[in-house]
Amino acid sequence: MSDHVYKIIEIVGSSPTSIEDAIEGAIRRASQTIDDIGWFEVKETRGHVEGGRLAHYQVTLRIGFTLRDTKG
Amino acid sequence: MSDHVYKIIEIVGSSPTSIEDAIEGAIRRASQTIDDIGWFEVKETRGHVEGGRLAHYQVTLRIGFTLRDTKG
Amino acid sequence: MSDHVYKIIEIVGSSPTSIEDAIEGAIRRASQTIDDIGWFEVKETRGHVEGGRLAHYQVTLRIGFTLRDTKG
Amino acid sequence: MSDHVYKIIEIVGSSPTSIEDAIEGAIRRASQTIDDIGWFEVKETRGHVEGGRLAHYQVTLRIGFTLRDTKG
Amino acid sequence: MSDHVYKIIEIVGSSPTSIEDAIEGAIRRASQTIDDIGWFEVKETRGHVEGGRLAHYQVTLRIGFTLRDTKG
Amino acid sequence: MSDHVYKIIEIVGSSPTSIEDAIEGAIRRASQTIDDIGWFEVKETRGHVEGGRLAHYQVTLRIGFTLRDTKG
Amino acid sequence: MSDHVYKIIEIVGSSPTSIEDAIEGAIRRASQTIDDIGWFEVKETRGHVEGGRLAHYQVTLRIGFTLRDTKG
Amino acid sequence: MSDHVYKIIEIVGSSPTSIEDAIEGAIRRASQTIDDIGWFEVKETRGHVEGGRLAHYQVTLRIGFTLRDTKG
Amino acid sequence: MSDHVYKIIEIVGSSPTSIEDAIEGAIRRASQTIDDIGWFEVKETRGHVEGGRLAHYQVTLRIGFTLRDTKG
Amino acid sequence: MSDHVYKIIEIVGSSPTSIEDAIEGAIRRASQTIDDIGWFEVKETRGHVEGGRLAHYQVTLRIGFTLRDTKG
Amino acid sequence: MSDHVYKIIEIVGSSPTSIEDAIEGAIRRASQTIDDIGWFEVKETRGHVEGGRLAHYQVTLRIGFTLRDTKG
Amino acid sequence: MSDHVYKIIEIVGSSPTSIEDAIEGAIRRASQTIDDIGWFEVKETRGHVEGGRLAHYQVTLRIGFTLRDTKG
Repeated sequence: MSDHVYKIIEIVGSSPTSIEDAIEGAIRRASQTIDDIGWFEVKETRGHVEGGRLAHYQVTLRIGFTLRDTKG
Repeated sequence: MSDHVYKIIEIVGSSPTSIEDAIEGAIRRASQTIDDIGWFEVKETRGHVEGGRLAHYQVTLRIGFTLRDTKG
Repeated sequence: MSDHVYKIIEIVGSSPTSIEDAIEGAIRRASQTIDDIGWFEVKETRGHVEGGRLAHYQVTLRIGFTLRDTKG
Repeated sequence: MSDHVYKIIEIVGSSPTSIEDAIEGAIRRASQTIDDIGWFEVKETRGHVEGGRLAHYQVTLRIGFTLRDTKG
Repeated sequence: MSDHVYKIIEIVGSSPTSIEDAIEGAIRRASQTIDDIGWFEVKETRGHVEGGRLAHYQVTLRIGFTLRDTKG
Repeated sequence: MSDHVYKIIEIVGSSPTSIEDAIEGAIRRASQTIDDIGWFEVKETRGHVEGGRLAHYQVTLRIGFTLRDTKG
Repeated sequence: MSDHVYKIIEIVGSSPTSIEDAIEGAIRRASQTIDDIGWFEVKETRGHVEGGRLAHYQVTLRIGFTLRDTKG
Repeated sequence: MSDHVYKIIEIVGSSPTSIEDAIEGAIRRASQTIDDIGWFEVKETRGHVEGGRLAHYQVTLRIGFTLRDTKG
Repeated sequence: MSDHVYKIIEIVGSSPTSIEDAIEGAIRRASQTIDDIGWFEVKETRGHVEGGRLAHYQVTLRIGFTLRDTKG
Repeated sequence: MSDHVYKIIEIVGSSPTSIEDAIEGAIRRASQTIDDIGWFEVKETRGHVEGGRLAHYQVTLRIGFTLRDTKG
Repeated sequence: MSDHVYKIIEIVGSSPTSIEDAIEGAIRRASQTIDDIGWFEVKETRGHVEGGRLAHYQVTLRIGFTLRDTKG
Repeated sequence: MSDHVYKIIEIVGSSPTSIEDAIEGAIRRASQTIDDIGWFEVKETRGHVEGGRLAHYQVTLRIGFTLRDTKG
């Protein structure tokens, strides 16, 4: 692992039910186009409110993955 | 939406069961007296421990709402 | 001035034209209900985009004012 | 305590003599209109200088109190 | 909106005239290749100076947009 | 409580299921060797991803406890 | 001094009278079990309020000391 | 440019009209006595309010310049 | 340079020997696919340890480059 | 006051007795050579410990003063 | 790895020659008494100067290790 | 040392070879005009890239020195 280069991107997942659901949805979506996601870090947890009730959570993640040879 | 003015207040919800429950309880309580809550942001997640077990979560939220003409 | 107590609140001004317009609108709105606003501090500058163009700026301010004897 | 909701406000106390005096004056003033202040946190310690001497300290506090049923 | 995933990227706009011009130029440029930009946040405002005068502002933005199905 | 001295340590709990499970597991583990844990604060929420799915959450906590007379 | 290794721990001192009293009490308590405390840094100043008056200050310190050969 | 040493100072510009005017005034003033200002960074944007209207902006800048051989 | 738009990405370089080696490896790798890298900023320096010895450094960089007309 | 330019410098005061004494000593010392100090802000509070007792406080201040026409 | 609990401690390594030497010395020293150190993070890089030359670097690390069953 | 007053300034050293070389060059340069530099702290590590290779490191230092009786 020692000479690898990783890239970190930020994505925001959302869910009407839980913080974990927002995180896991974002990871699933990101892994459709990125092969080697290795870790994530929660940067911000926000949400929208409608009619006095939580409408959905929005969780901003920094996601790290191994950088392959084609796209920097 | 472009010329609206919003106010942000900080409240702390607590719950013995989950972070989401603390957040949603705080929003319900705040919406008893504030009409147009639009969004929130988690600022801090803390908790108390009793007898070596989690007693309750305390989640500090910044809550934003549209400022009407009566209350500054 | 030495023994005064001040209160700080957070408000968000918005404007389709400039950061200064968002700030000054928020101050005008807040001073409708607060008498002695003395200073402010920009905490965050954000905005919305529609159709690839800036729709409006949203500037979060912390506003400080002298605390009178009626409202805490 | 587990399901309570708290509110946090920011106030600034000032005193020509000490940081503690500024803090305690701000708490006394806030408790004239707020019943259940439970804790505080020092956010910023500043001051003014006149003629090369300290004129007064200004200490910004975040103050937390239990939210009752009437005002959010 | 509840199950969407968004991506956040950072871009830096520059302008010899104003902060707003730097922001709006960066948004226009980004929207040439990104369809659904929804919001931005100013992260840093810097600038260069030449001959004792401001040469240009450089404003770093975090820009959020809806993630479609083709590019992660 | 007024003259007590507390110690704060940092631990990281992990769980494949939820943030709360990682937090509560870390508290249970810490309370095997520390008697008077009183509170905690979430410092960081991270996680690992394997095969495009969340493998486990890692939640860093600051945990505070009363300092007795034997261990500094 | 050049090749020494130091350890930093966090402790919280409390006092009903002053910030300095809370700091100095925490240092005295820590030095009962740690020999070579060299410096400290105030990380947080908080407090509790009872009946509208300050009950006690709580000052969180990071304390640094030389690491001897027995305890990591 | 590779072995140069730079110095960074902090100055605060003020203006009743705009943030840019405060920044550019501060740079002009600083360049009366400093030759090689190269860049700046906005650290804080504040302002004073009088009679419910913005009185002036105060923008704190960090300004960097090449260090010549006479003044450290 | 005044009207250019730049993009900033985050990458992580790793090296078993030094922080500089991790940084320079990350820049070389990124420049395989990005033409006009102009600057970088170290955001985080971490590392892994195996058998009580440093295994490799991991240095997170923010890298800025001029945005051309094809890729946002 | 509206078009003034201010400079901010950082100094560290020290005192064996109190935080206020360290602050006020630093202000007195700085005002020997600077005429128009207007305000300060505490940036850091640290201290040294000798023989298990506080030796002295070290308080880092940012001090602001009006910039006259001779020295930038 | 999923249900492990880790502990994080802070140590400061010092070296007259390089930042890496300070880091690696701190890790070697910590691993004399801690078995399963897994990672570290640089929190602060400081140093002392004597006679106008660098005397030694001081690098503060947060070090994480697996928590076994005997020591909390 | 207890009643001394120190000043902190910020300088940026640069070097094409290493972070340490940038730091030590900045300290040597600063000590040409400042007698009693005692310590430094790394605030920021950046660099420029030319042709896909590191051109030079730029390390921002906060440097502390004892304040003598002539210059504030």
